[in-house]
Amino acid sequence: MKAEILSIGTELLLGQIIDTNAAWLAQQLPDFGIDLYFISQVGDNRQRLTETIKRAHDRSDLVICTGGLGPTEDDLTREAISDMLGEPMEVQPDLEKALRSYFGGRGMEMPERNVKQATLIRSAQTLDNPVGTAPGWWVEHHGRFIACMPGVPHEMKTMWQNQVVPRLRERVTGSFILSRTLKILGKGESAVEEMVQDYIRSTNPTLATYAKNDGIHLRLTSKAADEVTARDLIFELEIKLRERLGTLIYGQDDETLEGVIGGMLQDRSLFLSVMEAGTGGVLSALLNDAPQSPRFFRGGLVSQQPEVLTGWGVDAELLETHSIMSKEAAEAMATAARQTLGTEVGLAVCAAPRKDTFPGKPAGQIFMAVDLRGSVKSAELNYRSNPSEIKRLGSVFGLNLLRRSLLK
Amino acid sequence: MKAEILSIGTELLLGQIIDTNAAWLAQQLPDFGIDLYFISQVGDNRQRLTETIKRAHDRSDLVICTGGLGPTEDDLTREAISDMLGEPMEVQPDLEKALRSYFGGRGMEMPERNVKQATLIRSAQTLDNPVGTAPGWWVEHHGRFIACMPGVPHEMKTMWQNQVVPRLRERVTGSFILSRTLKILGKGESAVEEMVQDYIRSTNPTLATYAKNDGIHLRLTSKAADEVTARDLIFELEIKLRERLGTLIYGQDDETLEGVIGGMLQDRSLFLSVMEAGTGGVLSALLNDAPQSPRFFRGGLVSQQPEVLTGWGVDAELLETHSIMSKEAAEAMATAARQTLGTEVGLAVCAAPRKDTFPGKPAGQIFMAVDLRGSVKSAELNYRSNPSEIKRLGSVFGLNLLRRSLLK
Repeated sequence: MKAEILSIGTELLLGQIIDTNAAWLAQQLPDFGIDLYFISQVGDNRQRLTETIKRAHDRSDLVICTGGLGPTEDDLTREAISDMLGEPMEVQPDLEKALRSYFGGRGMEMPERNVKQATLIRSAQTLDNPVGTAPGWWVEHHGRFIACMPGVPHEMKTMWQNQVVPRLRERVTGSFILSRTLKILGKGESAVEEMVQDYIRSTNPTLATYAKNDGIHLRLTSKAADEVTARDLIFELEIKLRERLGTLIYGQDDETLEGVIGGMLQDRSLFLSVMEAGTGGVLSALLNDAPQSPRFFRGGLVSQQPEVLTGWGVDAELLETHSIMSKEAAEAMATAARQTLGTEVGLAVCAAPRKDTFPGKPAGQIFMAVDLRGSVKSAELNYRSNPSEIKRLGSVFGLNLLRRSLLK
Repeated sequence: MKAEILSIGTELLLGQIIDTNAAWLAQQLPDFGIDLYFISQVGDNRQRLTETIKRAHDRSDLVICTGGLGPTEDDLTREAISDMLGEPMEVQPDLEKALRSYFGGRGMEMPERNVKQATLIRSAQTLDNPVGTAPGWWVEHHGRFIACMPGVPHEMKTMWQNQVVPRLRERVTGSFILSRTLKILGKGESAVEEMVQDYIRSTNPTLATYAKNDGIHLRLTSKAADEVTARDLIFELEIKLRERLGTLIYGQDDETLEGVIGGMLQDRSLFLSVMEAGTGGVLSALLNDAPQSPRFFRGGLVSQQPEVLTGWGVDAELLETHSIMSKEAAEAMATAARQTLGTEVGLAVCAAPRKDTFPGKPAGQIFMAVDLRGSVKSAELNYRSNPSEIKRLGSVFGLNLLRRSLLK
């Protein structure tokens, strides 16, 4: 099956936003054995949009559109498909009712222009949007498919998973393809690739490495006539990789670092407190993305001012002697967090996102420490990047130190 | 002049890299009065690449290609243009010599396959590449232009500035284009559009609305023979919009909400403390994205456990009577943050990202409060979305309440 992605919106042609939707969708397609040949960005112009969708529909079995489903005059995806197929858009009373109740539930009246979000053409079905006002369209015409989803990334991803994927599974035939991703923290991409070099050239399953913002991903993909064989192929390679990489692997597939840690803390009924300087709340926010956070996260203390840290139980003299950007300060903060909020575990990260964050300290210096019932471990890292990446990466590596402390 | 961008490389179709080149180039074009109608990504397949370049060349005055200029068999941009125009690629002795000396200067011998980087066709000139091995091509054919640049972003940008821009300035005549973006918080996209409806159909300047994750953006774009006229056109409309929208507008162009608030706090030498329940650190992290944060952010307290909040100065009885998810709790938290960390301003947000975050409270309920030197304001909001969006939006609206409190 040949697919094509269209990202719709003049803001893409003005360079105001970068098209991350297309790359995300492109990553999903190989798992269905779907080949992607083209990606295009097109503006909110009815004629050009209609031409572009028509060419895509003519040459590709599946066209995936994002954007242009809003209520305004600039939102023309529905109109373009209606023009192309010569099928008029008709308001669906049940969709309109649902839309009005969506607004009503927020104490608002629906603006009249939103009614066009409740339309369909003869060849289209609705793709439900539980997280926004714009339902998508699933169009089947002469054995070819068009999926239209909103441009807002989280709405698009939800609709893809819940609405488009089941339809693809029904309709896409051929071999059964399975994937598994192993997630790694503690080594860079080249080092990981060297460790698994003898498997990289394998053809079934294939093995590929990706540098992601939560570590290195090892992706295993197998292809077989049936699911059991595909699963066995993956399983065999996975065992070998796990033997070789051990605890460098922190999770697989949809598992997140914070979720894995949340699971470990919850299983052992441990509560965690956090103190962070320089990361500005990113460490707490990351931990609170774990679904178990209400059952392990006691509290987070965020400041980079020495007198505030002192108020939270960090020794003033120690801060003066070593400065906040030190192993000693990170360790004292982990202990102070644990003691001041009365938990079994304390985690601290000190990071300098900018050159001037802490006087005389270079950007990208990061210290982290864990205090687990009085036993303290710390680590240090230098990472040259922009401020938001330094904060994020300092937090991720702080979490990985916590994970490794909990393993023992 | 009509332009089109082609980004070339199979890695784009696999989602392994995100196409940031196209967005960067798209941002450059308006300043030359060049209209961009299409962006496409295409893989390293000779036939599809040739078809795509041919279509672009047929319909656009200027085609800007990036990628596919390397030395390997997968690098096919030169071949595709040669196929399309029916002009054979010929090795240029002076280019080959320069390439060999580039390698020689690095103590390496040039691999023989690199010789294809020293070729031209009859209609092409070389675009020098001082920072890499791949020279670009500038093709002129039947009064239309094709610029081919490397895919490596810094090589592309250098070549654009030094080689392509001078050629465009020579050849492109016509109008001067200017844009301005006004950023709005406090109303939805439809409501904003209704407020400015009489200007939406204006043709010069044009006015468009975009829903972004930091509010609604209103983009004004003017076109004129000279810069002064273009600027006057924008200015005239901007004044009318500012009169109508007033303090709903929080910033313009590159300004961020946290930066605007940071500026207000810094100007008035006010320090801020934050207490957040349910947003898990997102509010603190957002505020610390402001470049001025070291000069106004005292500290952040993150917890959703009543006994921890009580330890930070929130009245236990009040929490028991009203629960954390209440106007009363948010107000008490703003005051407690201010008093416990000794600042002029306290900000609190209480949000339920999930249905079970606070017993009996629906997902998406958000309370926020500001205490400015003892004068307390609060607000409430319901927003149905996923947990991370609820946390982010609760924080953004908390910041907007703070902004509005500081305006008075």
